[in-house]
Amino acid sequence: MRFTICAAKPEDCKDIERMIMELAVYEKMPDQVKISHKELERDGFGPNPFYQCLVAEVPEELMSKDGHTKVGYALFFYTYSTWKGRTVYMEDLYVMPEYRGKGIGKALMATVAKVAKEQHCVRLQFSVLDWNKPSLDFYLAKGAEDLTAKEGWHFLRFHGIALDNLAQEAP
Amino acid sequence: MRFTICAAKPEDCKDIERMIMELAVYEKMPDQVKISHKELERDGFGPNPFYQCLVAEVPEELMSKDGHTKVGYALFFYTYSTWKGRTVYMEDLYVMPEYRGKGIGKALMATVAKVAKEQHCVRLQFSVLDWNKPSLDFYLAKGAEDLTAKEGWHFLRFHGIALDNLAQEAP
Repeated sequence: MRFTICAAKPEDCKDIERMIMELAVYEKMPDQVKISHKELERDGFGPNPFYQCLVAEVPEELMSKDGHTKVGYALFFYTYSTWKGRTVYMEDLYVMPEYRGKGIGKALMATVAKVAKEQHCVRLQFSVLDWNKPSLDFYLAKGAEDLTAKEGWHFLRFHGIALDNLAQEAP
Repeated sequence: MRFTICAAKPEDCKDIERMIMELAVYEKMPDQVKISHKELERDGFGPNPFYQCLVAEVPEELMSKDGHTKVGYALFFYTYSTWKGRTVYMEDLYVMPEYRGKGIGKALMATVAKVAKEQHCVRLQFSVLDWNKPSLDFYLAKGAEDLTAKEGWHFLRFHGIALDNLAQEAP
């Protein structure tokens, strides 16, 4: 299938918003999405962007049944390891269901890896839900290590009241 | 015990490097540390810093048996959630063994939470090794959610040859 991978532009944010929601539905947590294309535009395209995004696009003649030509995205940013220095974290990788199995996800992920290498990052990291076997198998087949399974890393979060309470204990 | 929590200064990087190594020894992966105070200075104190760091300091009369007064640190940075926007990720939280149980770790973490709230972040996230029960219990008692246990999130990584191979597949 013919497709291109390009850096997202501000005008892509409505499509990115749509696909963020599609991904959240797939992850069974659509009520968690509190962001819109306005925040995505502000946060990704200012002088000091909080994230970078790649968009996969197909030609018009291959548009989806709903009329979309932006059919996938990868959103990532830089984090910092006190062992290895700057690192790329891929927050989202998504391809619309009718475009899966055509190499688009692999091309998005490989382009994120290429950016990571260009920026001298020695790690590309991300999180996957354990019941999402197709994705887990896809990543593991490409050589990713599952650090939760291998080393026992658990992912923790303070939010809501617990975050408020904690902040109030600051000296 | 009397102590202060301050934003790290460039001259603290040798102490931070020392404590990064102490933490890696505790986590049983000291051979993984490839960073020195020079990179920490460059990466944390330029015009566009990759991380922020807090340092806990005790008065001279309470210095450690090895002569240290910088006895703990919390290193963090901003990440981005496509559901919630900007988020704080705490990469490291460490207090030297002889200073534990005196509220220093709690004060460091609470200060990170306070910064998160000031920056309108609704999440403070971090990772913990599952065998590190004292730390897990400490965080859970303060109201943190274990998202690996609760929702099944696994943490994955491409590095080394796998990252090189992936980058070469970019279109």
